[in-house]
Amino acid sequence: MTAAIVTPKATFVARRRALHAKLSGPVLIAAGEAPSRNYAANRYPFRASSHFLYLVGRPLSGAALLLANGRSVLFTHPPDPEDALWHGPRPALDAVSHELGFADEGGDVRPLDSLDAALAALGRDVGTLPTQDGASSTWLGERLGRSVVARSGARLTDARDASLADAMIALRLRHDDEAVAQLRFAASVSAEAHLAGMRATAPGGSERDVHAAMLAVLRRAGLEDAYGPIVTVHGEVLHSDDHSQPLRDGDLLLADVGGETPEGWAADITRVWPVSGRFSPTQCALYDVVLEAQLAAIDAVRPGRRYREVHDVAKRGLVEGLVRLGIFRGEVDGLLERGAASLFFPHGIGHLLGLDVHDMEDLGDRAGYAPGRTRSATFGDAFLRLDRELEPGMAVTIEPGFYQVPGILGDPARTGPLGDDLRREVLARYADVRGIRIEDDVRVTDSGHEVLTEAVPKRVDEVEAVMRNR
Amino acid sequence: MTAAIVTPKATFVARRRALHAKLSGPVLIAAGEAPSRNYAANRYPFRASSHFLYLVGRPLSGAALLLANGRSVLFTHPPDPEDALWHGPRPALDAVSHELGFADEGGDVRPLDSLDAALAALGRDVGTLPTQDGASSTWLGERLGRSVVARSGARLTDARDASLADAMIALRLRHDDEAVAQLRFAASVSAEAHLAGMRATAPGGSERDVHAAMLAVLRRAGLEDAYGPIVTVHGEVLHSDDHSQPLRDGDLLLADVGGETPEGWAADITRVWPVSGRFSPTQCALYDVVLEAQLAAIDAVRPGRRYREVHDVAKRGLVEGLVRLGIFRGEVDGLLERGAASLFFPHGIGHLLGLDVHDMEDLGDRAGYAPGRTRSATFGDAFLRLDRELEPGMAVTIEPGFYQVPGILGDPARTGPLGDDLRREVLARYADVRGIRIEDDVRVTDSGHEVLTEAVPKRVDEVEAVMRNR
Repeated sequence: MTAAIVTPKATFVARRRALHAKLSGPVLIAAGEAPSRNYAANRYPFRASSHFLYLVGRPLSGAALLLANGRSVLFTHPPDPEDALWHGPRPALDAVSHELGFADEGGDVRPLDSLDAALAALGRDVGTLPTQDGASSTWLGERLGRSVVARSGARLTDARDASLADAMIALRLRHDDEAVAQLRFAASVSAEAHLAGMRATAPGGSERDVHAAMLAVLRRAGLEDAYGPIVTVHGEVLHSDDHSQPLRDGDLLLADVGGETPEGWAADITRVWPVSGRFSPTQCALYDVVLEAQLAAIDAVRPGRRYREVHDVAKRGLVEGLVRLGIFRGEVDGLLERGAASLFFPHGIGHLLGLDVHDMEDLGDRAGYAPGRTRSATFGDAFLRLDRELEPGMAVTIEPGFYQVPGILGDPARTGPLGDDLRREVLARYADVRGIRIEDDVRVTDSGHEVLTEAVPKRVDEVEAVMRNR
Repeated sequence: MTAAIVTPKATFVARRRALHAKLSGPVLIAAGEAPSRNYAANRYPFRASSHFLYLVGRPLSGAALLLANGRSVLFTHPPDPEDALWHGPRPALDAVSHELGFADEGGDVRPLDSLDAALAALGRDVGTLPTQDGASSTWLGERLGRSVVARSGARLTDARDASLADAMIALRLRHDDEAVAQLRFAASVSAEAHLAGMRATAPGGSERDVHAAMLAVLRRAGLEDAYGPIVTVHGEVLHSDDHSQPLRDGDLLLADVGGETPEGWAADITRVWPVSGRFSPTQCALYDVVLEAQLAAIDAVRPGRRYREVHDVAKRGLVEGLVRLGIFRGEVDGLLERGAASLFFPHGIGHLLGLDVHDMEDLGDRAGYAPGRTRSATFGDAFLRLDRELEPGMAVTIEPGFYQVPGILGDPARTGPLGDDLRREVLARYADVRGIRIEDDVRVTDSGHEVLTEAVPKRVDEVEAVMRNR
């Protein structure tokens, strides 16, 4: 089992210093609080705001980081004997200050109830970012004397907030060495989870068996789910959260599962394997089409390359492969213009990866789209989450797919432009493929790229070898 | 593996009918929505409101049930081709109406966007209950034209809401046969999880290994966590959510883990077992004291018995045992009066169990405390969550414990009244016990009680036998 990676405090000091250098005024970044599940005290596992985790490294529920005049001050709950009975003793604020590097940078850690005075001293002229939970956003709004709406990241109407968002994006787009170590840790444990998933798959079992086996690997290593795990024989349902289906000989199982390290960094991996352990010839043929498109797209990842072009490489690769199989007829450029790719691959090639699995999606397309660029209006391309030039240090996913979605293939508005060049009689032979997606995490290096998730088998013979040795 | 239990639709029809009979005006019960985690689209697993689940049985995100003039109408999202791509096809509302029994009772299932018209026709004079998530509470408030604050269950200021709460409590306090079947299902899978946890325990391992093994059993059976699982060698931290500690020979491991069925019903089980597989003589002696107190408390569970008395039985049993061990000296009544029990057992003997692990705690003490009764001001007793006469059909937990909490044993305000009758030199011999809790789920029957969780070993020799055969 991969050993846990802990980021040294000097990294957090350096990140806070880098943010100070980009700020034009004071800012307050809240950790947030765990939302309630069915009653107030029964809460979901706490997940701190990614901005807070980036700068502080520890999920301190209810805490907030104030950066003002070059000084970093963390406001958090002081130790409380009453609370210690229920949640264990908490360290003194002094100790927290040393552990998290605030003392080292001439900063400070103070009790949360002194935050209002500190904000008043700044005339409450302070930028912030909304948290996801309503309670914290209300709390932030009360502190700052203005409306801070939960989950409103995409619509930052306050200029101070927008400026803070841009500063965070400028920092977080390119990962420092310690962030890369976290991504590698997440990738490595998630890779083990996928291997465990393959080994737990057998006809007569259930999606739940596979889900449970993968989850157990993540939890044993101390990782949470970076997103709702998809483990399904209905890969054509893109965000299926049902795990109750039986596993039948002949089914392909799609698993899109990634862990999140205790510091919050994500992996995002999709693999598809046959329940029987052997791909059928038709499954194998289509799988190889997706894999070739994926390898071509990964190959296109390098500094300076516009990510939308990587998306286009995958689309072209997919359509070329489908022409080879005879599912499409005709010339590839024309087929692409007529929407051939999005008939079977109706989503984007991937997204930024970091502390969030869709990194900084809380800030809307402000993070994923370069200034001046907006979403395409075209079906399929409209779901592309990233349209920037790639830079060294960025991490992205590359995840093309092939899905037979009844709602798309039965919609004349989508299929009409292809006419008879979509050869349904050929497609019918591939009825044993409902959905395939192959997804890796890729870091842009100075000269090209590094695949963080290459430990997960993906060639047909590699996958079948793992399953033979179940 | 225990097979899933599905409640027949006739039960939900009967429950809705029973609620209609108790209502004095129209009410709207919302399912709620999944709160966001780190960005809007990345959500926690959805958990519908327990009131909604009790009456509808299916977690329909965003839906709401309107009961008015004897008629039940479910408002929910209709099928949507755009959404089908991401989440799979949804059944037509007609089909939902048949599946969930609305058609059978002359009720109806309608698209959510027709709710406002239905409410307007009632003059928006409608009772409701707050949901846990802020978004749904805001939505409810907008529908009803008044403030409905998330998680405010304890403070229902609107008379219509309070009346609905009382009607729900009157129904949910005593479980019908299908609810009991759900509780048994939850108990049975959770029992298997505890056995798996015992088998996964070994010196040199980690709390995480045990947690992962228990979780895997729950997930394979399709159960979620009914509450944040506690798996810790620091049992004296009552609500520890840390699972990162190593397991050492000589440690006791405390696991408070229970699953929740797909329909939402909970189990709540705590067991303590030795990492080595063998209790030390001192651990064994203290464990038996807690176990005897627990058995005496369970024995006291019967119709007509006030639950506070069950709490007192456990306190007395614990202090008697500690006198036997020489940890206390003196006469039991006097020791109890001086707070001896709460020094080592600072929480309540248990709580209601049902759709919520603390059933209906979203309504505050309105559910747990009989009208006119309030919390004790005494340390320990103040945490008792239930003070009603037990009635056939109720389900409760029985969970005494023994904890050496530094913050309590080092607090002269707590220990002072005991003086030298707390014999610290004897207590010091029991340093290898930090925390023990033994918890079962108990249903009140017509003549006594049924232990729903008796499949989980709890006698020392039974626990050691399981661990010998790891």
